[in-house]
Amino acid sequence: MEGMFDPVEKLKEFIRHPSVSTDPRFKDGMRGAQEFVSGLLSSIGFAVEVVKTDLHPIVLARRGGSPEWPHVIIYGHYDVQPVDPVNLWKSSPFEPEERDGRLYGRGSADNKGPLMVHIAAVARLLEKDPGLPLRITFMIEGEEEMGSPSFPSFLDRYREELSKADLVYLSDTGIPSEDQMVVTCGLRGLMLFELEVTASKGDLHSGLHGGVLRNPIQAVAELIASLHTPDGRVNVPGFYDDVLEVEPWERAELKRLGTSEEQYRQFLGVPAFHTPPGYSPFEAIRFLPTLEFNGISGGYQGEGTKTVIPSKASVKVSCRLVPNQKPERIRELVYKAIEERMPKDVSFRLITQHGGIPYVVVPPDRSNTPADQSPRLAQAFRAVDSAVTEVFGKAPLYLREGGSVPIIADIKRVLGLDSVMLGLFLPEDNLHAPNESFNLRVMRRGIDSSERILARLARGK
Amino acid sequence: MEGMFDPVEKLKEFIRHPSVSTDPRFKDGMRGAQEFVSGLLSSIGFAVEVVKTDLHPIVLARRGGSPEWPHVIIYGHYDVQPVDPVNLWKSSPFEPEERDGRLYGRGSADNKGPLMVHIAAVARLLEKDPGLPLRITFMIEGEEEMGSPSFPSFLDRYREELSKADLVYLSDTGIPSEDQMVVTCGLRGLMLFELEVTASKGDLHSGLHGGVLRNPIQAVAELIASLHTPDGRVNVPGFYDDVLEVEPWERAELKRLGTSEEQYRQFLGVPAFHTPPGYSPFEAIRFLPTLEFNGISGGYQGEGTKTVIPSKASVKVSCRLVPNQKPERIRELVYKAIEERMPKDVSFRLITQHGGIPYVVVPPDRSNTPADQSPRLAQAFRAVDSAVTEVFGKAPLYLREGGSVPIIADIKRVLGLDSVMLGLFLPEDNLHAPNESFNLRVMRRGIDSSERILARLARGK
Repeated sequence: MEGMFDPVEKLKEFIRHPSVSTDPRFKDGMRGAQEFVSGLLSSIGFAVEVVKTDLHPIVLARRGGSPEWPHVIIYGHYDVQPVDPVNLWKSSPFEPEERDGRLYGRGSADNKGPLMVHIAAVARLLEKDPGLPLRITFMIEGEEEMGSPSFPSFLDRYREELSKADLVYLSDTGIPSEDQMVVTCGLRGLMLFELEVTASKGDLHSGLHGGVLRNPIQAVAELIASLHTPDGRVNVPGFYDDVLEVEPWERAELKRLGTSEEQYRQFLGVPAFHTPPGYSPFEAIRFLPTLEFNGISGGYQGEGTKTVIPSKASVKVSCRLVPNQKPERIRELVYKAIEERMPKDVSFRLITQHGGIPYVVVPPDRSNTPADQSPRLAQAFRAVDSAVTEVFGKAPLYLREGGSVPIIADIKRVLGLDSVMLGLFLPEDNLHAPNESFNLRVMRRGIDSSERILARLARGK
Repeated sequence: MEGMFDPVEKLKEFIRHPSVSTDPRFKDGMRGAQEFVSGLLSSIGFAVEVVKTDLHPIVLARRGGSPEWPHVIIYGHYDVQPVDPVNLWKSSPFEPEERDGRLYGRGSADNKGPLMVHIAAVARLLEKDPGLPLRITFMIEGEEEMGSPSFPSFLDRYREELSKADLVYLSDTGIPSEDQMVVTCGLRGLMLFELEVTASKGDLHSGLHGGVLRNPIQAVAELIASLHTPDGRVNVPGFYDDVLEVEPWERAELKRLGTSEEQYRQFLGVPAFHTPPGYSPFEAIRFLPTLEFNGISGGYQGEGTKTVIPSKASVKVSCRLVPNQKPERIRELVYKAIEERMPKDVSFRLITQHGGIPYVVVPPDRSNTPADQSPRLAQAFRAVDSAVTEVFGKAPLYLREGGSVPIIADIKRVLGLDSVMLGLFLPEDNLHAPNESFNLRVMRRGIDSSERILARLARGK
């Protein structure tokens, strides 16, 4: 058998495939990334099935064994975010570059690097112990950055096989610092749409016609301005109705984060925070839903001036949702508010995009009201706790996170499985932004931890 | 002497020079258009001086004569608006195409076609009567679409010579229909700026950080929404303080426009008008100032979705001003409102662009309080009235217009000269928009009218 591969070099190869799932121009990069990860798993002994979907296939790679063995499903995704504004990148997004202990490139942290951590851990473990009593299934999709549209029907199709596993294990969440690992116990859901307003049938000269119609930029802006109260809450009736109360242990855990508000403010580079009353910034991003504007456009955006009244203006909107909000209910409420508030002197349309339900899991030994969970799930949490404590010298924190991995809730709903989410990326990794990078020290220690975690799961203790 | 040129073919040549003054990539087109118009005027006997400026030169072409002769300055501009969105053009903007009695191309109506009308009229007149007792000076600039930044200092430099003229004559204004000519007696001024808001120092992941900061798109939108009252007035203290009352003859003249509100609404293609109370749509665009949004941008504007909180968002703003508002005063008031209203959790900057003062002239025989004006100016108005009545079969209307030709007010201020503005373009000419065109029937009758007007001016009756 050939020797263990170099995980950093393999990660570079992975990043070189430009796998932007939302943009049809990256079709070749998507295929390249899928074939790369399939080939790698095959090379370490997995039986690889490439499951077709309407868009980008899912890689399902199995290591079988006795039905008595524990069975872990490892999740990841091979697709990445778009790279624009590309001019802000210091090195080319798809030509990975090592600088100061970091590997720069689109997808290095989200999610190619963390996925490589687990592939490397499995490879190392199987090299040392080819008879390891652990069933492992890699489940790696290519549509995560577009909201995983094909994933629920894939889960339905493979439910009988996959629901027999004990748990899902993945790293697609964050940590506050290199030394403080986090096990993510909750994720926000997501609801996305676009609003397009049309005033006149074509662009108009702002001198000849300015003053008789509502400018569509103004109409969009007035609508946007109506969607928050001055104190930062979302101003849509019923928006907060289904939000679950946060448990006291969660607020306590968050106090151990080790980052001050001032440090966080400086990291963001904002003049001041703007959070709803009663929530610290750290609480707000985890415990509260949001309504954000991801992009706005209309009229002349080039150099200099053009005195035009545009025909159209539009805004891309996303809501992050917390347990127990339902994306379709929130969509109804927000659409209703927009329909009621939009003036009659313009027309508009709402373009429905994807959504995902929020997720929460209670780790063992934390809550005063412990959840009814399987011994193997509790064991997995304990394996993570001890492995992380050994490798990083400090126990992990159990925190909810502001981001969304909608498929985690889908997995719970369809397969009945909970997920153990070991955070691996840092705030400075610049996910979804220019100059994304992955900390290589975290990567190495992540591989060590993951190897121990999987070994413990196999030993059943 | 060679025969008279074909004005339509010459206009096509003119349009083929892509002279977008605001965009440095069109430098060659700017030089081509300037050389074309200089060559044409030279070919009909004018002494051409190309006056250098910091940016685009001004063509000053003189036909001298006895100091006793009347002296008319004919104004025009050889620069054009940008063409985007270029995909909405049915034919290439700089490859003129005749369709259904119209010539399509950027600049065909604004201002290359109307300028060609006067060059052709002068050429025809001088061909028939080489000794015509009329001094003519063409003054053709290349920075009109950028707000004529070099024009005031040019006027200062040539003041002694130019201020001895009797009046300025031009066509850079509109008419409501092919048969109803308009002499424009007022123009709105202009004040332009851009507002850029910065929240975080870089783009942020909307899941990891959403809920702790004010999104810059939201900040821009909230500011925009604060700038109008629900009934459509500009919501800036003091904005209307200096606005002059409209004279009764002006409202009466406007009633003879011959276009119904419903026709106008359908032309614009808006579901309903949105005008301040007390003003019809036709009045609002002429008698009231505006604050418009010409372009907005921020965040992800590509295909699909990207769940980012952008670092910056910005909006381009223009105010149209009416007599007796002053651009610098209005700028102060608007900037002050923005500074007061912008929340402290974002930073912002205001990028000052150009401005222009509004203009009004009272034609003879209309107002109950006639202005003190020179006999030759009054004579010019009467020459236009009778020439238009003869050629078009209907007397012109004397109306203010919503557009801005800032140099008209500069000419009045620096040279002390009023302008006689004969409208030549139609609403359907699509100025500043895709598929700009010029009506060739209006062009031919415009040449006939202009020839008669200049002949009458020469004869002094």
